[in-house]
Amino acid sequence: MGDEIRIESDAFGDIQVPSGMYWGAQTQRSLGNFKINQPHDRMPPPVIKAFGILKGAAATVNMRFGLDPKIGKAIQQAASEVTSLELIDNFPLVVWQTGSGTQSNMNANEVISNRAIEILGGQKGSKKPVHPNDHVNMSASSNDSFPTVMHIAAVLEFEDSLLPALRALRDEFQKKSDEYQDIIKIGRTHLQDATPLTLGQEFSGYTQQLTFGIERIEGCLPRLKYLAQGGTAVGTGLNTYVGFAEGVAEEISKMTGKDFKTAPNKFEALANHDALVEAHGQLNTLASSLFKIAQDIRYLGSGPRCGLNELNLPENEPGSSIMPGKVNPTQCEAMTMVCAQVMGNQTAVTIGGMNGQFELNVFKPLIISNVLHSSRILADAMTSFREHLLDGLQPNKARISDLLDKSLMLVTCLNPIIGYDKASKTAKNAHKKGITLKESAMELGVISEEDFDKHVRPELMISPKEYKGKL
Amino acid sequence: MGDEIRIESDAFGDIQVPSGMYWGAQTQRSLGNFKINQPHDRMPPPVIKAFGILKGAAATVNMRFGLDPKIGKAIQQAASEVTSLELIDNFPLVVWQTGSGTQSNMNANEVISNRAIEILGGQKGSKKPVHPNDHVNMSASSNDSFPTVMHIAAVLEFEDSLLPALRALRDEFQKKSDEYQDIIKIGRTHLQDATPLTLGQEFSGYTQQLTFGIERIEGCLPRLKYLAQGGTAVGTGLNTYVGFAEGVAEEISKMTGKDFKTAPNKFEALANHDALVEAHGQLNTLASSLFKIAQDIRYLGSGPRCGLNELNLPENEPGSSIMPGKVNPTQCEAMTMVCAQVMGNQTAVTIGGMNGQFELNVFKPLIISNVLHSSRILADAMTSFREHLLDGLQPNKARISDLLDKSLMLVTCLNPIIGYDKASKTAKNAHKKGITLKESAMELGVISEEDFDKHVRPELMISPKEYKGKL
Amino acid sequence: MGDEIRIESDAFGDIQVPSGMYWGAQTQRSLGNFKINQPHDRMPPPVIKAFGILKGAAATVNMRFGLDPKIGKAIQQAASEVTSLELIDNFPLVVWQTGSGTQSNMNANEVISNRAIEILGGQKGSKKPVHPNDHVNMSASSNDSFPTVMHIAAVLEFEDSLLPALRALRDEFQKKSDEYQDIIKIGRTHLQDATPLTLGQEFSGYTQQLTFGIERIEGCLPRLKYLAQGGTAVGTGLNTYVGFAEGVAEEISKMTGKDFKTAPNKFEALANHDALVEAHGQLNTLASSLFKIAQDIRYLGSGPRCGLNELNLPENEPGSSIMPGKVNPTQCEAMTMVCAQVMGNQTAVTIGGMNGQFELNVFKPLIISNVLHSSRILADAMTSFREHLLDGLQPNKARISDLLDKSLMLVTCLNPIIGYDKASKTAKNAHKKGITLKESAMELGVISEEDFDKHVRPELMISPKEYKGKL
Amino acid sequence: MGDEIRIESDAFGDIQVPSGMYWGAQTQRSLGNFKINQPHDRMPPPVIKAFGILKGAAATVNMRFGLDPKIGKAIQQAASEVTSLELIDNFPLVVWQTGSGTQSNMNANEVISNRAIEILGGQKGSKKPVHPNDHVNMSASSNDSFPTVMHIAAVLEFEDSLLPALRALRDEFQKKSDEYQDIIKIGRTHLQDATPLTLGQEFSGYTQQLTFGIERIEGCLPRLKYLAQGGTAVGTGLNTYVGFAEGVAEEISKMTGKDFKTAPNKFEALANHDALVEAHGQLNTLASSLFKIAQDIRYLGSGPRCGLNELNLPENEPGSSIMPGKVNPTQCEAMTMVCAQVMGNQTAVTIGGMNGQFELNVFKPLIISNVLHSSRILADAMTSFREHLLDGLQPNKARISDLLDKSLMLVTCLNPIIGYDKASKTAKNAHKKGITLKESAMELGVISEEDFDKHVRPELMISPKEYKGKL
Repeated sequence: MGDEIRIESDAFGDIQVPSGMYWGAQTQRSLGNFKINQPHDRMPPPVIKAFGILKGAAATVNMRFGLDPKIGKAIQQAASEVTSLELIDNFPLVVWQTGSGTQSNMNANEVISNRAIEILGGQKGSKKPVHPNDHVNMSASSNDSFPTVMHIAAVLEFEDSLLPALRALRDEFQKKSDEYQDIIKIGRTHLQDATPLTLGQEFSGYTQQLTFGIERIEGCLPRLKYLAQGGTAVGTGLNTYVGFAEGVAEEISKMTGKDFKTAPNKFEALANHDALVEAHGQLNTLASSLFKIAQDIRYLGSGPRCGLNELNLPENEPGSSIMPGKVNPTQCEAMTMVCAQVMGNQTAVTIGGMNGQFELNVFKPLIISNVLHSSRILADAMTSFREHLLDGLQPNKARISDLLDKSLMLVTCLNPIIGYDKASKTAKNAHKKGITLKESAMELGVISEEDFDKHVRPELMISPKEYKGKL
Repeated sequence: MGDEIRIESDAFGDIQVPSGMYWGAQTQRSLGNFKINQPHDRMPPPVIKAFGILKGAAATVNMRFGLDPKIGKAIQQAASEVTSLELIDNFPLVVWQTGSGTQSNMNANEVISNRAIEILGGQKGSKKPVHPNDHVNMSASSNDSFPTVMHIAAVLEFEDSLLPALRALRDEFQKKSDEYQDIIKIGRTHLQDATPLTLGQEFSGYTQQLTFGIERIEGCLPRLKYLAQGGTAVGTGLNTYVGFAEGVAEEISKMTGKDFKTAPNKFEALANHDALVEAHGQLNTLASSLFKIAQDIRYLGSGPRCGLNELNLPENEPGSSIMPGKVNPTQCEAMTMVCAQVMGNQTAVTIGGMNGQFELNVFKPLIISNVLHSSRILADAMTSFREHLLDGLQPNKARISDLLDKSLMLVTCLNPIIGYDKASKTAKNAHKKGITLKESAMELGVISEEDFDKHVRPELMISPKEYKGKL
Repeated sequence: MGDEIRIESDAFGDIQVPSGMYWGAQTQRSLGNFKINQPHDRMPPPVIKAFGILKGAAATVNMRFGLDPKIGKAIQQAASEVTSLELIDNFPLVVWQTGSGTQSNMNANEVISNRAIEILGGQKGSKKPVHPNDHVNMSASSNDSFPTVMHIAAVLEFEDSLLPALRALRDEFQKKSDEYQDIIKIGRTHLQDATPLTLGQEFSGYTQQLTFGIERIEGCLPRLKYLAQGGTAVGTGLNTYVGFAEGVAEEISKMTGKDFKTAPNKFEALANHDALVEAHGQLNTLASSLFKIAQDIRYLGSGPRCGLNELNLPENEPGSSIMPGKVNPTQCEAMTMVCAQVMGNQTAVTIGGMNGQFELNVFKPLIISNVLHSSRILADAMTSFREHLLDGLQPNKARISDLLDKSLMLVTCLNPIIGYDKASKTAKNAHKKGITLKESAMELGVISEEDFDKHVRPELMISPKEYKGKL
Repeated sequence: MGDEIRIESDAFGDIQVPSGMYWGAQTQRSLGNFKINQPHDRMPPPVIKAFGILKGAAATVNMRFGLDPKIGKAIQQAASEVTSLELIDNFPLVVWQTGSGTQSNMNANEVISNRAIEILGGQKGSKKPVHPNDHVNMSASSNDSFPTVMHIAAVLEFEDSLLPALRALRDEFQKKSDEYQDIIKIGRTHLQDATPLTLGQEFSGYTQQLTFGIERIEGCLPRLKYLAQGGTAVGTGLNTYVGFAEGVAEEISKMTGKDFKTAPNKFEALANHDALVEAHGQLNTLASSLFKIAQDIRYLGSGPRCGLNELNLPENEPGSSIMPGKVNPTQCEAMTMVCAQVMGNQTAVTIGGMNGQFELNVFKPLIISNVLHSSRILADAMTSFREHLLDGLQPNKARISDLLDKSLMLVTCLNPIIGYDKASKTAKNAHKKGITLKESAMELGVISEEDFDKHVRPELMISPKEYKGKL
């Protein structure tokens, strides 16, 4: 059954196609010509979904410019099936194809035309009454369609997947920061003991990073919402009608609920993907933030006996049956690996983006597949991190308190009381003998116990003080 | 004379310093401890300048909080000499030092205190009456000072150097685009002949890239204008007074005419440099744009006999004494090398940015030196490109016209007149025999000469047409 | 049927597992904890295959150290089914998991133990008589097993897939270089017309790049052939017997026909993956070579009328039904996109490789998945390029000859005959008037037609000449 | 005095040059045309030195092929002054120039010819009796000279600077590894407490990384030792004599004591710099190794009270006057910043390397400046790290021992004595109550004190054991 075939044709002649599939001759040829990491590196689903949206919107506008409504409506229906991804198996091409994405555009045209033909009671492969080029691709070129699809896919992924995951993570960090606002701990700079801060303050830094991360992603969206459609082959709009470009952007906005606009300059929009290089730069910045956060947390959770151990990470899987308390920071590890991948993808996207030539950039599938991959793994990793690490995170208050007490850094606050020299002597003596600051101060007799306890209070060291005139 | 020395001291004891220099013990020690590509990789001048600004502003605010005005004013004067770069030779440290930039902060403190001492008639090295730590570094830590300086330096370089160069280049491209608006030429996609556009349209794409580039740089400035000052050692503001952080940001704004603000979260501001990772991402995007533009222009200028030769590039230096007309696209080559360097710096900045630990990122000198380097070489290369290439660029109208005429792509417009089949036959015949479209059409007798000349007009192919009802 | 379940257990307790699958509790838990781009980013098949090889080899050696032969042989059989990839559906975990690959190691242990149990007539999930930890993982830790698997997978992919594809491509370029040895063409430097060379010489450069590329890949293999197995948890070999490490390396060598050796230092082998960072550096170099080659060929094939058009690329798919001769260089585009991806993966692998901590690097799945991805897409793209582009490539001799004749560069050879000044005048006159060199020479009367034809011969300009004494 | 000028000329006419300088018209023009980060980004000194070597060697060989010995010897003398860098101020051009390095080649030709003229008693700028092109550049083109210089410079830097620094660092690590062979410490995987190893074993891993690093650098030298000289403009060797290429390689080998050879294919050698992309890949691998080592050491030195504190780092500069024992790991920070820069340079070199076009790569100055920068900062940072950190490094034996004793991981060795269940119970009890393993064992009565002390011995856990038959 699965090996039944039908004949499809294109300018090159006839070719056999699996009869159960909607794709046509050009898709089939590409399958033969580009056996590069098949099927692993197939065009990502958000691109296919965006093709469905675009082709449906184009049909709507084309009906205003002469497309037979019967054909137009069949195209709309077929396109909506592409959008829902129910026809995803009909998109077998890998990203390593022509750099314009022409073959994936033809794949969409062929699948939609054959499905529309079927809807209208025709014969798959007959190109009647719905022709892949004349009707589905009407007023369009691969050269403007593929960039349009790139932007639609990126915006939908960012707004509907990445940003919600990022906002949820930020909110969870805010919650933790609030919860931890009274837990005073030792600060660390250069990895060395430093002056204290609260665990809530430490987490407020992470929260702020993510808040800025949201701003950064949002800041690149306006340029991503410009659509190339209407530029056709080289950006001039040859073979379109005045109003087509704007109409398609409006329809896509209606269908998606996003505020897409037609690009102010179609030459830029076909020949360059600076907007995606920029957007990936923001993903790269987010990855940089998340790497730091995950790295901190795994160090703070290190131990249990021979590390910092200020945080207890939730135990999600067996660490070792021998070693109780050995909780590997696996969510941190997954997160930092994801970040490293995103940083690599940044280089790939940049090299793709810089290499447009004349009227077309032909690194399109590379660029969009990396942007979507980065977005997806960041979104998923943030959700995983939130659910499987942050939700169950517990401060180890005893350990935090113990380390704070041991620290020699608290001596700082004695400077105004006993003078810098005696304070310094106190700290050095404690360090040398391995005793506490208080023990050292008592031993040296530089201050009374009562005064020591009154002044050496970390809670006075975690904010600026009010100026009350020159001391 | 040059080898006279004086004694300076710090917590480690005495050390000999060249007597003609203002730096002190800690600077001298760092010189000995970090002999890494000295003197090539010294801290960039914009950082030194920013130290001058910061230390002057801090003195102003510190005088409100008890700093002796006599000392404060001497610091202001010494700091202004640092700002003007007249003391640049007193900043000998390389970027490969401690990752907090502490040694450069101490270098600034030492130079300013010694110069202020001199102003007040004291003895260099005496630390009296102006102490590098107690007075110049009053209310401050290296950990908030160096990040503050990073942001000041980046904002000044971006606003006063990079953006003006970028805007001037954009304007020149706009001018060229306007000039070339009536020159119709062959389009190229996949490097293959495609439908026509005007040279002005082609250049409008470049203009648009740069317009977006300006938006991108401007878009990252708000987060760069947040200053860390006031966070001191770990972000808590220990040893500052309420109002100090805001006061410093205000003073720096006044001194620079830029709208700096105190950072909303100092923990984020010390432990991370996401704002600079983001900013470099925008430089990377700009580099991607400029690479494409420079690459296009060098290909369009290739030849003179065996290339595309649509543009004549100004001849700035001898190509070859044998080969007249051999104008090497040297400005394009300098520009594309600059872009490649920026793309490399992007990786370096990202790796630095991701590696903050707990309360401090210790890749600060690396990050800022790369951001400033990228900004500087982009700014200079854009100015050089504008002055030495774009200003003297000339379209080779004869060649452009010749190629357009030869193209087979113009046949497209005959489809509605003689039908697709005959049009295709005409083109194929021309290609096969190496003749022009018109010759082919005449030979095949598919259209009259008069009709051919009436319809085959590239000027009708460079924009959408008005819809006048279904054909 | 598909939703039947059985109960598996681990230190955390019971968990439901699909009854048709061989995996156990730890795999199932990981599936729930790491929903990050499932199923797209599953552990690559060469890693699974390598697990099969390793576990089989370990069983062989463990039988020498006390493992019950009945159990050992069942493990060998189950492992061989893993090696053949017939059980690939039983390896559902993504690379975004714990950074030690522990969960994939346990996945292998669980699948092999359950399959071995089945072979021996037992009950899946019973852990009897074959326990995933005690028997399949005997003498091993994830910490040495996963790095071993990384090296096995990389070596097999390099030697059995990448190098054969690279050698075949090199040989095809050599063949083309030989074929084209008499076709003299214009050289181009800075994209500008330069002195001539043969098309065969031009292709010999590509051949040499690939020859060096083979040397480069081969040069990194010795360090990849060192196996970590025997280091167990931290590199000390705790819980192994003397001879185990060497025995496993020998067995793996026998099974694969490759010359693996036990690593000289297991601490290095667990905590670092420098050998893979190095290896990817060579893939990156190869990508750099291939990018240049593909870029050259697409430029040489540009046109047909308005580009260089010195090469005719095979037409593999419809370019445009209107535009005969429009052959898009799609194989070049796929190749250059692949190269850009490899260059991105280089950054990812480096970031992973630099981030080992103490006794373990926990970016293992990231590193190996990128190395294998790069190897696979390079191998496939080289094969595709060879079969679908190089095999059918044709020089456009008429065009090559025409451009050569037009060039002004040939005047160089007249220097010794008519002197530099007249030669230069000839070239400048030709350039200015748009005439040929010969026309210019005749017009200026600097040489007779006979002498011109005798001397201006490109074939004399393509090699050094014999020295016959001072002129 | 300094502003006196003389007139120099080239094909473009006359131009004023500072009379004290040896450079000529083309250098002067480039100074005006490329004001890009002057003077910071001047061509690196090793390139200038290599020009001296090349020009001297070429003069030697050219004398065999007709060059007047009087001129040849004067060139040799002038060239040797370039080699010694005494004329370095005469090389003012930045790397951001033409991508072939032509202007730096002409800078060398001009300086050497003017200096040779001076030696022979002539007038600077007269080009008599030593002409920059006809004599200094005899048989050469920038297109083969600059790549030759790139390879000479890289080989000299690698062999005379980088490798010695690397070998010295490796030897010092070996020494430390030997010293520390009896210090048993807790291992850490995933940052979590693991089974023990010796500090010497831990350092042996670092030593092995560096040993492999030496192999890696050495492994790329053979391809770097191939010289392009003799290829002239496009690789054909036009205007050279048979034997010239080989002769130059021999002379350079004699002058430098390195085993240079003429490149087997000059087309590859001009159009590509794969050998430098490869070499930088090895620098990148070395940077990856060094990052890990420096990162480990700074974590092991963290504290003094609230970190791991297993190592005491030498105190090279004041950390804080308040905080005794606060030794910032500044050498580690400098090293990791250097590594990040090298990783960025890797991307820059790759982008430069991939972008050769036809017969020439025009990213030459970018490529070599990044390779030399990476080599220099790695060499210097390794020396600094060795001298200022490793030499004074001290294990904190008390702390190491204390952590080892606290660890619960030692329970592993009790499995064979008291069984897994009781061992596990012992560890869990200890973890829960925060007591030692021994306290827990005593409390639970699972073993006698005598037996505990006999068996729980870390020194038995740091190597494989001899197999003595099935247990």
